[in-house]
Amino acid sequence: MGKILLQSVFHNNAECDILISGTTFSSVGKHLSPQDREGAEIIDCKGMAIFPAFYNAHTHAAMTLMRGYADDKPLFEWLNNYVWPLEAKLNADDIEIGSRLAVLEMIRTGTVFFADMYWHRERTMKVVEEMGIRAAIGVTISDKLTSPEGLEENFKFLKQHTGESERIQLVVMPHSIYTVSENCFKRSVEIAQKENYLLHTHLSETQQEVADCEKDYGCSPVELMQRFETLNSHFIAAHCVHLNENEKKLFAKSGASIVVNPCSNLKLGSGLPDIAGFHTHGISVALGTDGASSNNNLDMHEEMKIAALIGQLQAHNNGNVFPKETVLSLATEAGAKAYGIHAGKIAEGYLADCILVNKNDVQFTPCHDIVSNWIYSANTNTIDSVICNGKFVMKNHHIDGEDDILKEAQQRVKQILTR
Amino acid sequence: MGKILLQSVFHNNAECDILISGTTFSSVGKHLSPQDREGAEIIDCKGMAIFPAFYNAHTHAAMTLMRGYADDKPLFEWLNNYVWPLEAKLNADDIEIGSRLAVLEMIRTGTVFFADMYWHRERTMKVVEEMGIRAAIGVTISDKLTSPEGLEENFKFLKQHTGESERIQLVVMPHSIYTVSENCFKRSVEIAQKENYLLHTHLSETQQEVADCEKDYGCSPVELMQRFETLNSHFIAAHCVHLNENEKKLFAKSGASIVVNPCSNLKLGSGLPDIAGFHTHGISVALGTDGASSNNNLDMHEEMKIAALIGQLQAHNNGNVFPKETVLSLATEAGAKAYGIHAGKIAEGYLADCILVNKNDVQFTPCHDIVSNWIYSANTNTIDSVICNGKFVMKNHHIDGEDDILKEAQQRVKQILTR
Repeated sequence: MGKILLQSVFHNNAECDILISGTTFSSVGKHLSPQDREGAEIIDCKGMAIFPAFYNAHTHAAMTLMRGYADDKPLFEWLNNYVWPLEAKLNADDIEIGSRLAVLEMIRTGTVFFADMYWHRERTMKVVEEMGIRAAIGVTISDKLTSPEGLEENFKFLKQHTGESERIQLVVMPHSIYTVSENCFKRSVEIAQKENYLLHTHLSETQQEVADCEKDYGCSPVELMQRFETLNSHFIAAHCVHLNENEKKLFAKSGASIVVNPCSNLKLGSGLPDIAGFHTHGISVALGTDGASSNNNLDMHEEMKIAALIGQLQAHNNGNVFPKETVLSLATEAGAKAYGIHAGKIAEGYLADCILVNKNDVQFTPCHDIVSNWIYSANTNTIDSVICNGKFVMKNHHIDGEDDILKEAQQRVKQILTR
Repeated sequence: MGKILLQSVFHNNAECDILISGTTFSSVGKHLSPQDREGAEIIDCKGMAIFPAFYNAHTHAAMTLMRGYADDKPLFEWLNNYVWPLEAKLNADDIEIGSRLAVLEMIRTGTVFFADMYWHRERTMKVVEEMGIRAAIGVTISDKLTSPEGLEENFKFLKQHTGESERIQLVVMPHSIYTVSENCFKRSVEIAQKENYLLHTHLSETQQEVADCEKDYGCSPVELMQRFETLNSHFIAAHCVHLNENEKKLFAKSGASIVVNPCSNLKLGSGLPDIAGFHTHGISVALGTDGASSNNNLDMHEEMKIAALIGQLQAHNNGNVFPKETVLSLATEAGAKAYGIHAGKIAEGYLADCILVNKNDVQFTPCHDIVSNWIYSANTNTIDSVICNGKFVMKNHHIDGEDDILKEAQQRVKQILTR
C-alpha cells in the first residue's frame, strides 16, 4: 500500500502533517509515529495549503473540441448551423482526443471527478482510466436525437462494463424531457431502479422547455419527474433554472440533487438558478461547468466564484445564508455526495483527493482567511499539485504527456473542420 | 528612444512583427526595414499572442490590505464593525504598502492603469511612479466622513502636483452623494471645471442611496448630477446599479462614462448593473474591480468574464448586442478613453501598453477564435509579460521585488491588527 506524507501543509489555518495511506486520508493533523511514517513518500509542503479537489457534477467533456466555436451567434443559429452539424461529424477517435484534452484541463484546474453526458462513452472511460481521475460516465439516451447508441445497446453496455474500474461508475442519462420520448424516459427510469444506477438528466434549463412540458404533459418538469417516479435520492438534475416554489419543495422532500451551471446559463441567456434559495430549501446543490462550448472552460474554481457571487446577490449579502464553507462544499463535497463518492473533504477515512496550492502567491496575500482567499481571490494559477485516489496526477505543475495532448487536439480540430 | 521589436507575435489571427518606439506602437504588422529594426531589443514571440493590457477604471488600491477581511458578515455589520474601524487605523505608510501590493497584483494580472479613490494619495502616486504603470489618482473628498485630507488642502495638492508625472493624472473625486454635502459637492464640480480636471464619484450603487437621494434632494442620483452641472464628458460614475430608463437616456446624451463593477455589486448584494442596456443606449461603459475587500481581487480578466456573462444574459444571448470585441473594449479601450488616455488598442500611434500571453496553454486549445478564448476560457495564468508605456513591467513572469512586496504586506497587516 503506497503512502504519501504531506509534511507541514497549511490546513484549517495551521500547519500540520497529513498522511495518505493507499487511497484514503489515514491521519490528518495528528502526531505520527515512526511506524506511521515508514515507507511514505515525504512531500515538503512548506508554503502550501491543502484543499479538497473539485467534483464537476455536470459536463460534456469531449465538447472541449468546440471551445469558442462560433461564439456570439444567437442561440438557435449557433446550435442549428454550427454546433450540431459539427457534432454530427465526430467519430469515436475524436471523442477520445476531446476527452483527453478535457481531462488535461480538469487536472490542471484541480478537478478530479466529472459526470459526463456524451457519446462513445467507452473512449472517455479509457481516457479517465489512463489519466488517473474519477468519472461518472453516462450511457446517454436520446431517441429524438440522432445518437450512435440506442436504448437497448446502452443497457447492454451498462451490464457489461459496470464495476470494471475502481474510479469509474456508469450512470443512466436520458438527455432531457425534450429529446427523449415518454416511453423511452420511463424505460430508462425502470432499468436504473431495477439495476440500482443513478439517473442524471438536464431539467428546466430554459423557459421554452418549461412551456413545452406544460403543453405536452400538462405539468411542470419537476412534476413530470415525480410522475415518472424518478424524483428520489438516486436522481441528479442539471440546471434547474426555472423552478417554482412548489418544485423546490418537491426537490427538497425527495432527496434528489441539483447541479447548477451558472456560467453556461448566463452565457446562453437561459437565466439564473436560485442557488441561495435551493440551499435554504435544504436541497443538496452541486456544481458543474457544463460543456466548454458554452462556458468556455472546465475551470471549477471560476464556476465556484461565480456561483458564490450569485448566491450572495440572492441572499442579499447575508453571510449567514451562503457562507464560504457552503460555497466550497458546493464545488467539492456536494458533487462527490451526489454521485455516492465518499470524498470532497480533507478528513480521515475520506478518499485522498486534494490539491496543494501556493499560499505565497499575491492572490493569497494578506491572509486574513485562507478559505475566503481561495474562493474569492485566487485562481487555478496557484495550484501546484493534484492528488486523486492517493496518487499524484499533477506534481509541481507537471502533467505527463501534456504537450502531446495539446498538439493532438489542435491538429484533430483542424482535420474535423475540413471533413 | 528605446525600441522593442515583438517578433512573430500572434495578432488578429496571424503572426506578425510589432515595433514599439519610445512610448507608442510605431508599426503593427508591416514589413520592417533594417533601419526600423536597428537598435531594437528583439523579443521572440513565437507561441505568444498580444492583447491590449487592462484599464481598471474604479478601485481603492490600498484596500488590498483588507482582502478577505471579515467576509460573510452582513453588509452593515461588515462596514461598521470591521472595515471602517480597521480603515481608521491606517496611516500613510500602510497606504504605501497596500498600494504596492495592489500594483503588484495588477501587473501580474495584466493591468497597467487604475483609477484610485483613497487617502494619502501622495504615497499611491509614489508607488505608481516606481513600479512603472499608469494611474488616475483621486483627491478624495468626503466631508461627511473622517478623512485625513480636507477640501481646500486637496485643491492645493491638485495645483501643486498636476503634471508632475507622465503616467499619473489627478482627478477630483467627491466620494458619493451620501458622504459629501451639497455645498462641498458643488464646490468640487466648480474647481474641476475651472481647472479642467475629470470628476469621478460613486453613483447609484444601492437602492438605499437612491431612496435617500429622492428624500433629501427630491430627484434621482443622475438628475442630481445634472442639477450640479457635472453630467458631461468629463464625468465618470462608478457602479450605476439602479438607473431608470430616463437616467440612462440622460447619461447617453451627456457623454459621461459609467464604470461597472459587477463582482463587487454581486458580492455586496447591491444588484446587477444593466451592462448590455448601457451599451445599447450608446453610453460609454468601462470596467472596474472596486476594492479587493469586496471583490476580493484586482483581476480585471475575471471581472471582464463576469461582465461578459451578465451582458449575455441581459442581451438574451443575442451575440449581435454584446459581441466579444465590445467585451474586450470594455476592459481596455473604454477605460483608457474615459480617463483621456490614447491607449487600449494594438494600433499605430497608440500608447504601447500590452500583454503577451502563452497561446499554447490548454485554455487556448483548440483555437477556433483567439479573442473568444482570451475572454471566455483563459485566465491570467497565461500572461507571460506586460508592457506599459513602452517598457516591460513584467517579463517572463518576473516582476522586480515581488517577494519583498509580499512579505512586507503580510507583516504590515499583522502589525495593523494589533494596533
